[in-house]
Amino acid sequence: MDNNYTYEEISSQVKSWKENFDVIIGEKTKISTDLFSKDFDRIIFFGCGTSYNLAMASSFFTNTVSGFDSIALPSSELLFNSETYIDKGKNYLLVGYSRSGETTESIEVINKFKNQEKIRTFAFTCREKNSFIDVSENHYVCRGAEEKSIAMTRSFSSMLFSYCIMLTRYLDNKDRLKEFSGLCTYLESKIPLLFGEVKEYIDANDFNSYFALGSGFNYPLAVEADLKMKEMSRIPEYSYHIFEFNHGPKALLSEDCLVLFLTISKKLRNVDIIVDEIIKNRSKIAIIGKGIKDLKKGGNIRFFLEDASFEDELVESFINIPVFQI
Amino acid sequence: MDNNYTYEEISSQVKSWKENFDVIIGEKTKISTDLFSKDFDRIIFFGCGTSYNLAMASSFFTNTVSGFDSIALPSSELLFNSETYIDKGKNYLLVGYSRSGETTESIEVINKFKNQEKIRTFAFTCREKNSFIDVSENHYVCRGAEEKSIAMTRSFSSMLFSYCIMLTRYLDNKDRLKEFSGLCTYLESKIPLLFGEVKEYIDANDFNSYFALGSGFNYPLAVEADLKMKEMSRIPEYSYHIFEFNHGPKALLSEDCLVLFLTISKKLRNVDIIVDEIIKNRSKIAIIGKGIKDLKKGGNIRFFLEDASFEDELVESFINIPVFQI
Repeated sequence: MDNNYTYEEISSQVKSWKENFDVIIGEKTKISTDLFSKDFDRIIFFGCGTSYNLAMASSFFTNTVSGFDSIALPSSELLFNSETYIDKGKNYLLVGYSRSGETTESIEVINKFKNQEKIRTFAFTCREKNSFIDVSENHYVCRGAEEKSIAMTRSFSSMLFSYCIMLTRYLDNKDRLKEFSGLCTYLESKIPLLFGEVKEYIDANDFNSYFALGSGFNYPLAVEADLKMKEMSRIPEYSYHIFEFNHGPKALLSEDCLVLFLTISKKLRNVDIIVDEIIKNRSKIAIIGKGIKDLKKGGNIRFFLEDASFEDELVESFINIPVFQI
Repeated sequence: MDNNYTYEEISSQVKSWKENFDVIIGEKTKISTDLFSKDFDRIIFFGCGTSYNLAMASSFFTNTVSGFDSIALPSSELLFNSETYIDKGKNYLLVGYSRSGETTESIEVINKFKNQEKIRTFAFTCREKNSFIDVSENHYVCRGAEEKSIAMTRSFSSMLFSYCIMLTRYLDNKDRLKEFSGLCTYLESKIPLLFGEVKEYIDANDFNSYFALGSGFNYPLAVEADLKMKEMSRIPEYSYHIFEFNHGPKALLSEDCLVLFLTISKKLRNVDIIVDEIIKNRSKIAIIGKGIKDLKKGGNIRFFLEDASFEDELVESFINIPVFQI
């Protein structure tokens, strides 16, 4: 972390998640219905930098839990390659993310499409007044998520959490809502100690490069872990889909390298082959969550939040966020 | 480049493109019709490593020039997250790439889906006999594209070229076919000198890291440039959508860094802002193709294949491939 603001922002994020949970679940608001009840063939999520990673995560969540079809794009790609992504015969819901609401390309996206009959627009932001809200048809302002740091931490997780709660509420999935609520309780009890644990581990090692690996919903989170490291520590950092790591990128493994595995889904097979390959290269491994069965624990593998135990793997993935932010 | 095989494979790739062009355009074959005439709602392109980059490029090309809907996925992601990507009510055409035809995850993808009524499968490979062909419903073997090197160079471009020719032929776009033919003539005359030019430039500078930037069809090519550098030179290398570079990654710019811009589309605006930012950080820039209007030429910007002049920007993008491979 780069400064005290960031420390405070990472620590307080679960408070912001809970605040947004209450607002979105609250009987009086109809945000979820407003967002999803329109007629559309596809949702396109968009944003820049961290907000693009947010868009990718939202898209994976949507495609997994609902019947909606969605894709995620960097704002600039949607802006400059619209003939590739917009089929004039179809209806679209464009959902954009911008912490400040002043990101140039994201505002330009809305301005380009807002008067087209078949396109609806929705903006997620963390400030009450901004240009993104002004141009969008509908919007949601995340509570308690504004930040003073340059790097987005709390704002990233709060916007993602809020979107996931909206969709879960719209689908009326009470079990998943309960899991999200349990997630907040779990992380609130864990974050204070986690800071010390992660810091101690990083200080005890002198890593010269990082890899972040994740599959499915965890892939965009791995890309975000990568981007946060680039912004904060300025040492080489890479992110890949877990199994893509073996098809080329592993060439960069070395002794002082840390490979971070985000929570590993039970669906995955043969992750141990990749783990063995990394150990063979004398790199170190950190795993968030309980990891995989029969993994030989040793000096080269370190676990964080190993006791996390959620029914729903998408919800469990949120435990990755505070770990990589620290 | 790592060895003489790779040199020979890069040099001879245009010969392989022409061979495949003739086969696919030839009156007697009906490959294009076989591939596209089936009833499907979406094409899913898949592959591992370089072949995944190939899948992303094929998907962008398809979405841009045809009315087909497509996405690209790493084989492992399609395999382990199929409930996210396969909607049981829809028809799919799965198009996979594997040079050897023995890539484990890609074969597993076909095995998982081949008996499902609503799913068709098609394999691209560079060898006559292999497991991928055995399990797939239909296939195309790229002529003259097999390789001895570990790194895929000629096989990457030949499979991509072949796919693009198939779709262009199916759509009966004679202008684009003519451009593809002109591309071969242009590159055949340029590649011999290009080797010396690129090598001289790299040797004269002592770069300690590389960025490859591209938008649209050029983004997956930038990712491939990145992967080739990782496999061959083992120094830090990153790839981004052009405008995403400004949202975080630029933090890693330094004096001995080279930023490679793949051919820049006329549709893009404000690329000069990014160029200025890079120059301000005293990094160097290499641009493939004619670049952008009013760009101040100076010691920090080097052009390659500046005289390339194609009507069709998708076709022009192929000139990037031999430059970054060298």
